[in-house]
Amino acid sequence: MERPTIRDIANVAGVSPSAVSFALNDRPGVSDSTRQRILAVANEMGWTPNAAARALSVSRAGTVGLVLARPSQSVAAERFFFELIIGMQATLATADLALLFQIVDDVDQEVAAYRSLWRQHRVDGAVVVDPRQHDPRLPVLAQIGMPYVLVGEEDPNGMPSVTGDEEGMMALVVNHLASRGARRLAYVSARTSLLHTERRSQALTRMGREHDLEVMLSSAVDYTERSGAQATAELLSGNRQPDSIIYDNEVLALGGVTVARELGARLGEDLAVVSMEDSPLCRLLTPAVSAVHREPAVLGSLAAQLLVERLDGRPARSVQAPTPELVARASSTLSRLPVRA
Amino acid sequence: MERPTIRDIANVAGVSPSAVSFALNDRPGVSDSTRQRILAVANEMGWTPNAAARALSVSRAGTVGLVLARPSQSVAAERFFFELIIGMQATLATADLALLFQIVDDVDQEVAAYRSLWRQHRVDGAVVVDPRQHDPRLPVLAQIGMPYVLVGEEDPNGMPSVTGDEEGMMALVVNHLASRGARRLAYVSARTSLLHTERRSQALTRMGREHDLEVMLSSAVDYTERSGAQATAELLSGNRQPDSIIYDNEVLALGGVTVARELGARLGEDLAVVSMEDSPLCRLLTPAVSAVHREPAVLGSLAAQLLVERLDGRPARSVQAPTPELVARASSTLSRLPVRA
Repeated sequence: MERPTIRDIANVAGVSPSAVSFALNDRPGVSDSTRQRILAVANEMGWTPNAAARALSVSRAGTVGLVLARPSQSVAAERFFFELIIGMQATLATADLALLFQIVDDVDQEVAAYRSLWRQHRVDGAVVVDPRQHDPRLPVLAQIGMPYVLVGEEDPNGMPSVTGDEEGMMALVVNHLASRGARRLAYVSARTSLLHTERRSQALTRMGREHDLEVMLSSAVDYTERSGAQATAELLSGNRQPDSIIYDNEVLALGGVTVARELGARLGEDLAVVSMEDSPLCRLLTPAVSAVHREPAVLGSLAAQLLVERLDGRPARSVQAPTPELVARASSTLSRLPVRA
Repeated sequence: MERPTIRDIANVAGVSPSAVSFALNDRPGVSDSTRQRILAVANEMGWTPNAAARALSVSRAGTVGLVLARPSQSVAAERFFFELIIGMQATLATADLALLFQIVDDVDQEVAAYRSLWRQHRVDGAVVVDPRQHDPRLPVLAQIGMPYVLVGEEDPNGMPSVTGDEEGMMALVVNHLASRGARRLAYVSARTSLLHTERRSQALTRMGREHDLEVMLSSAVDYTERSGAQATAELLSGNRQPDSIIYDNEVLALGGVTVARELGARLGEDLAVVSMEDSPLCRLLTPAVSAVHREPAVLGSLAAQLLVERLDGRPARSVQAPTPELVARASSTLSRLPVRA
């Protein structure tokens, strides 16, 4: 069946195209009985409003954007984003919104993508992830006036946001490691300007001072296995080796665990390892890797819900994401260290 | 900056809106010098064609659909689809096409999604995956006339396709296992009507007859760890236990390996395990699991390329996906079986 046009419906109903247009757009110009006959014919022919035409008349594209600024290879390795997308699209579908997904190389391209998608009326709004220090995206989004939901931080423009609890997540990990006797904690994150890294680093440094723990901050080049391995090799060949390494995600942890084993570290005995992101990888590594577990699909669904509300004209609100848990596994036992009272 | 309208441009350029329309749409009605002035003003104001308006005039949505009929949980566990999406969107971006992504529960909802996306002019075409026996989607797609690319099989409607080599993939696995001394091969796939499962089962049965190997076909409920575990427990508690189990993907293999170990099977010694899909999971399992390795991103990119060609009016063509390799790991050594000459 071809898409029926107004002319097709007019032919079948035996009326003029303008009568069909009046009837379908609920405007005066046809009698009630004619209107009902036309609607019945249109319905029978499978007519639905043309989204493009509707977009022009009511300024709705029926689509929400998600643009990720990451090298593709690094994105694919992380379950986080795919689960986020799955959660988003499930909620968007209930509001009859489609998800438009794009991966770009860097944040400048991400800004260009927002400008282009908005100018071309291809999206009604977006979900913006990975808040950064001095985030160059937010002033642009405010300027072009595109509605969005920020995932990770409160939004300075007053848009809705889903906030996390980076300090609380780091406290979970530090308290766990300290209770196992850890004294020298290293935190391996990627050399980015992501705000969550900064918050976690600051929280770790503050907790280290409070609890009299030694803290080392290590910047891997990016979120890849190779970079995790390299940062770990540097830490383990230094003068003061850490007894615990906290990895910013499971991809860095995978590279780190592999090289630590090669270098002869006894994982779970004299070197503890914890990932700030959980995935089946953590469970399958030997030893199994302790990890902070959260549900990216829930984050995605929450973000989509806030955007739907915003597009419906309801007031912007900020929601705190559910508090994650620490799943303790063999990698953070530290059986050879004396546990402090 | 708000999106400039034709009226905005007309105000700044000091001409009538219709003159702007003539100029922007490259139609007669304005002088060359006026046209150039209008274009300069429009350009300066950041004007780009409105995708919705363009969709109406040239019937292009600028968007390509991918609808997956799977329970969300099962999709998230498989790297395959995320990597396919990443490959698709990279190629679509070069043609200025966006990717619209949707997950639905079953194939009936998938058909309904195609009908709705097409009627509403939300997509120009789609990439269709998971070809089925008596596939209910293909007659509908032919009927509504939506362009698409079929991934996995030649398309009966003459649309472009990316074909795989299921028989060749199964031959890789069977030859490998036979060379290690395997005699009784089980194939665990999910109880679906997916065509690739059928092709692989037939190839295994045929090769079993030719090489005098015993073959058992096992249908798991779905593509989840739990179902892989259950199917494996049944196989290993039967009267005639297999010496080799071939899993249709890494999620089934993960469940299978876990339960086989619990049941006391010596993996890689008297029970070989191979996955028809590779992922970091396979590498990290103990023992590491041999797997057929392919690059879903390459498949996605190929499919997107064929669709772009089709939308450009070029003739449909069918391309064979690159032949996968078998990555042999410890799980298929079968060190306790006598290797046949």
